Amino acid sequence: MAKAPGHVEGGHLGEFELIARYFAPLAKDAAALALRDDAAVLRPPESREIVISCDTIVAGVHFLPDDPPDSIAHKALAVNLSDLAAKGAKPYVYLLALTLPKEPAPDWLEAFASGLRALQEQAGICLVGGDTTRTPGPLTITITALGLVPQGHAVLRLGAKPGDRLYVSGSIGDACLGLRLLKEPASTKAWGLSEEQSAFLIERYRRPEPRGNLALLVRNFAQGAIDVSDGLVGDIAKLAQVSHVGAVIEAARVPFSPAARQALQHEPKLLETLLTAGDDYEIVAAVPESSAGGFEAEAAAKGASVTVIGRIEGQAGEVRVLGPDGKTLTLERQGFSHF
Amino acid sequence: MAKAPGHVEGGHLGEFELIARYFAPLAKDAAALALRDDAAVLRPPESREIVISCDTIVAGVHFLPDDPPDSIAHKALAVNLSDLAAKGAKPYVYLLALTLPKEPAPDWLEAFASGLRALQEQAGICLVGGDTTRTPGPLTITITALGLVPQGHAVLRLGAKPGDRLYVSGSIGDACLGLRLLKEPASTKAWGLSEEQSAFLIERYRRPEPRGNLALLVRNFAQGAIDVSDGLVGDIAKLAQVSHVGAVIEAARVPFSPAARQALQHEPKLLETLLTAGDDYEIVAAVPESSAGGFEAEAAAKGASVTVIGRIEGQAGEVRVLGPDGKTLTLERQGFSHF
Repeated sequence: MAKAPGHVEGGHLGEFELIARYFAPLAKDAAALALRDDAAVLRPPESREIVISCDTIVAGVHFLPDDPPDSIAHKALAVNLSDLAAKGAKPYVYLLALTLPKEPAPDWLEAFASGLRALQEQAGICLVGGDTTRTPGPLTITITALGLVPQGHAVLRLGAKPGDRLYVSGSIGDACLGLRLLKEPASTKAWGLSEEQSAFLIERYRRPEPRGNLALLVRNFAQGAIDVSDGLVGDIAKLAQVSHVGAVIEAARVPFSPAARQALQHEPKLLETLLTAGDDYEIVAAVPESSAGGFEAEAAAKGASVTVIGRIEGQAGEVRVLGPDGKTLTLERQGFSHF
Repeated sequence: MAKAPGHVEGGHLGEFELIARYFAPLAKDAAALALRDDAAVLRPPESREIVISCDTIVAGVHFLPDDPPDSIAHKALAVNLSDLAAKGAKPYVYLLALTLPKEPAPDWLEAFASGLRALQEQAGICLVGGDTTRTPGPLTITITALGLVPQGHAVLRLGAKPGDRLYVSGSIGDACLGLRLLKEPASTKAWGLSEEQSAFLIERYRRPEPRGNLALLVRNFAQGAIDVSDGLVGDIAKLAQVSHVGAVIEAARVPFSPAARQALQHEPKLLETLLTAGDDYEIVAAVPESSAGGFEAEAAAKGASVTVIGRIEGQAGEVRVLGPDGKTLTLERQGFSHF
């Protein structure tokens, strides 16, 4: 991050000034060396393990180029915080690699930084370093986020066991509907949505809410967990695959928001899309039957929504989705893949 | 990194297979969870601090799109290892965020992975995670590298003191000449270079050698250090600025390779370019006069080339470059800035 004294010529903002003005205020931790060095120096608390996540978002792929800059920043950080939450980790510090297509306008940078600031304060995480570069291509943001867990207590994908209940947080499918609304505004009418419902779905696409409030519960009760980024069915398939178990999802139990239910009512074949499109950033947790009561009670005490959507059973690596009629659905695909 | 089971259709390589085939073999550390999870879990040794660097390289900006894939991989990792070396840190683990413009050919991936493998084995570092995404733009690679230092022993930019000698490793300016040769092959003749000299300079551009063998020396003898990525003069200016000191560089002492000297002889005005163009990935260290003997002796014992090029003196933040005649050179710019 910390780069060149820069060249300030006629209002041109040098790299050094860009960092000093917009990003150094986000780096309150001493480890960040005020972003004036090439690296951060961390002294993590003893008897903690470090969980590291690294996710890239690209304009035109993971967000729309004209999304509000604060929501782009929010999303870049949120997708990483979602990974930390699924591991049961407490957010610690992050690094920002910002690859910009042109010299950014001050108000764009101001808004981008404010999006980071709002989420990092909410999550209790702090910027400690990164890099700022130029690209002839689209805006590209890679964030590397570090979280902390007591030694040996990170929750992995691979711990799900037969008989576990499968829970999911929040609601599924809102983001893909929000993206559709941004691309095809006429869908608002076609789906009979109110302005508020439409705005809600778009916001769910632009500003996913990392479920940090579930991290401790995941750690205390789940044997395996994953965040849903590439589609509910596909991500449960990954959990099942590395855990060497199978899974059954009951579509009728999957939590949908009122807005998504409204859209579904007008276009029932959206069901498959909602279950597989991704961008949900909800958490799926495999919780043993014996811990289910405690998990649900503590989630309720925190005001966190969790819903049983199925269970771990069946052939290793196989995920079955049961339709509302109890019959197995045949899906065209399970989730999103870049390749 | 760990993503989707993917879709394997008619030879199409899914994201999961891509990772499993090419990158999982680079992730031998248990922390990497075989790249089958969303995050890595690290337990750094006690009484160590973690130094984190994060650098992005973009095709057409930091390397040429048709550079050999193993050299692209090498460079992406090397620029981060260079930062760790300048901090006196021992390489530990890294994360790779690979943003690809199209589905890569197997032989491209094979070569890319082999470039990473060669350098990570040489440096003693291990892949533990990352992300693989698509972009409509150029190939973009962000690596986040973690290094270890004994607590309180990281060498920062800000410790240089008046009277310190300024050392630089290796040779300066080769990479910018190599880039020029790639863009204007006729320069080989214009500069009177042999084929070997030309190939040497190109290799220095494509495959910078991180000076990991100097990390311990930097830690033991330097009060401040920086790696030269954006130009020798500009990077020394950064060191001076955050250390609140000035610096004097004697151009006549700056180490140039025989190939660079050859080019300089034919085109003396290249001097300013060599001193400011960057991409050197050499280390500048500010070493107190009293430690200079020890530093030089240990560098010699390791077979590492270090050269005194100036000293810390003068007004805070000001860098003077003395020409071969002892007079201050006026430079058009000090170094490279993206903005």
